[in-house]
Amino acid sequence: MFLTLFRFISTHFKAGSPSPSERLKPISWKDGALEVLDQRLLPNKKVWLRVTCSMDAYSYIKTMVVRGAPLIGVVAAFGVALEACRLREKDPSAFRKRVKEAADFVASARPTAVNLSWATHRVVDSLSNAEDVEGMKLRILQEAEAIMKNEEAMSRRMGESGAALIQDGDTILTHCNAGALATVDLGTALAPVRFAISQGKKVKVVATETRPALQGARLTTFELMEDGIDVMLISDTMVGFVMYRGLVSKVFLGADRVLADGTVINKIGTYQIAVLAKRHGVPFYSVFPSSTFDFSSRLDQVRIEERDPSEVTTIRGRRIAPAGVKAFNPAFDVTPPELVTAYITDRGIEHPPFEKLARYLQI
Amino acid sequence: MFLTLFRFISTHFKAGSPSPSERLKPISWKDGALEVLDQRLLPNKKVWLRVTCSMDAYSYIKTMVVRGAPLIGVVAAFGVALEACRLREKDPSAFRKRVKEAADFVASARPTAVNLSWATHRVVDSLSNAEDVEGMKLRILQEAEAIMKNEEAMSRRMGESGAALIQDGDTILTHCNAGALATVDLGTALAPVRFAISQGKKVKVVATETRPALQGARLTTFELMEDGIDVMLISDTMVGFVMYRGLVSKVFLGADRVLADGTVINKIGTYQIAVLAKRHGVPFYSVFPSSTFDFSSRLDQVRIEERDPSEVTTIRGRRIAPAGVKAFNPAFDVTPPELVTAYITDRGIEHPPFEKLARYLQI
Repeated sequence: MFLTLFRFISTHFKAGSPSPSERLKPISWKDGALEVLDQRLLPNKKVWLRVTCSMDAYSYIKTMVVRGAPLIGVVAAFGVALEACRLREKDPSAFRKRVKEAADFVASARPTAVNLSWATHRVVDSLSNAEDVEGMKLRILQEAEAIMKNEEAMSRRMGESGAALIQDGDTILTHCNAGALATVDLGTALAPVRFAISQGKKVKVVATETRPALQGARLTTFELMEDGIDVMLISDTMVGFVMYRGLVSKVFLGADRVLADGTVINKIGTYQIAVLAKRHGVPFYSVFPSSTFDFSSRLDQVRIEERDPSEVTTIRGRRIAPAGVKAFNPAFDVTPPELVTAYITDRGIEHPPFEKLARYLQI
Repeated sequence: MFLTLFRFISTHFKAGSPSPSERLKPISWKDGALEVLDQRLLPNKKVWLRVTCSMDAYSYIKTMVVRGAPLIGVVAAFGVALEACRLREKDPSAFRKRVKEAADFVASARPTAVNLSWATHRVVDSLSNAEDVEGMKLRILQEAEAIMKNEEAMSRRMGESGAALIQDGDTILTHCNAGALATVDLGTALAPVRFAISQGKKVKVVATETRPALQGARLTTFELMEDGIDVMLISDTMVGFVMYRGLVSKVFLGADRVLADGTVINKIGTYQIAVLAKRHGVPFYSVFPSSTFDFSSRLDQVRIEERDPSEVTTIRGRRIAPAGVKAFNPAFDVTPPELVTAYITDRGIEHPPFEKLARYLQI
């Protein structure tokens, strides 16, 4: 049974990655397990780690081996599915209960990005109509794969929608990494850039380094340089000055959770970039798959993850501040809708209150 | 003659440091030369380097062994004075010419902070009425010492003026290091904090890490912790969020050059903090000695120093971005006067067009 399952998913996994280029992907399927690129070590080293159960998925998400809302969703879904395949329960309802527990566990790895709980719920929900345990195992792997394929398709649709907003000659500022390494294909915020370039437009990117975890310096520059896209790195202190100098024509960022009123919860530093963009009349676009919407929570119900202060007091393991210094390390911030020019999703360009989208998503 | 000079300055140097505490000072006089603390190595190591000539001063200023506009002025003045003492010229006008050359050389180490050229001009100008070369050597050392003492006195007056704006319970955000390590005493922006605390007010500080050179993480936290002042470190990406959360009641920053209309040229990142403070109704104070005024330049005449991009692509010598990545490294930015609540100087609290001050400074 196991071999059949793995052969199934293995075939489909490859079929699900019709990348036009040989772009570095953050996940791959190898010898019956999901392998994930350890993004903490990029760009210096390429180390692949194996996901064989829910514990692997939990710990890789929590420690940011994998990061980026869409990618987290895919890895979480596979973590739960692979855990399900290992279960020995023969009774369908006991099996379903154990899968649900695994899903809740993986979902608890990081509290802010909504794709994580969306993806884990989705693979559990896929079980409701299954008949026996072996059938459910096949079903949940298919569902994880469907989530992955869906992310790929959404990435392309976001790219297409967003590219329409990019003019020849634009310089686009982005923050953190909302690129191929945050997803399983073109990226979210970087998908429109790649699409626009494939349409023949000349586009440059300014990447902020994105302290504390340096995703911009390490990942965004890396994947854009691999694609031959013109990218310039700046420190997070320089955003205001590059806008003051008129060096940026548009801002494209990802999102970790978007509320019904258009409030964007995204990587720490997003809010201040949006404030600066507003002041300088630079359009600010938030780019994300529709799985990022959270139409049911109010802002005061969203928990902003606070990570270990040592991420602020060290850089790549080296201390930059006196021993014993106090530090604050919120991982996300909150951008109010009046600072967002438009929301670019796989369903096109949207604005709050997102009525059509809410209907489509059957909320 | 040399020994006499050095004994003279040595005695006066000690007398010029009546620090109430045993605060770590960035300069000291030892064995006939100025010693400067290598601030690039703080907080990990305390290494002292000797300034014996203009070349030493030039290279220590350029490579940021010493930084902070007031301290740069003092080190530059001593560098020129010590160079003058080494000259063998016997002819007063040839001597003056060589001193002027040394001053121009030291002044070229960094182009943006105005104290540097102000201090080097001042020691040269002090020579005009001197009679013979030996007298001029004594005179120029006295002038360098006067600049240092003046910085100390100004620091205390800035502290006193600024403390009046600080309430019991305030949390003050500061950027870069405008503290004791940037000056020769209490600091500029941090002088009011120290003064307010000595008046019995409870005051906390939030320090931004200040990429690329990390002066906030390395120096501001260090000197405040040494003084037992409550300080919390944040990454530069977190300024907006701490204001959004209402965690900051005031902003106090230094300045490297202030123009007649109140435009502040200061450490990169200042401008975006000022924009955020304005949005959140948080008062933004610029604190600096009157030697920081530049009433004669227009903004388009001020050169914003661009430093080596490797400062952005590395942190403390370790690469954080792919090899060959492009980067931009402006050292300063420009904050327009409408974002500055008040200007705190050694002459009190001021506002553009600074008429009284201009009269006092005889511009």
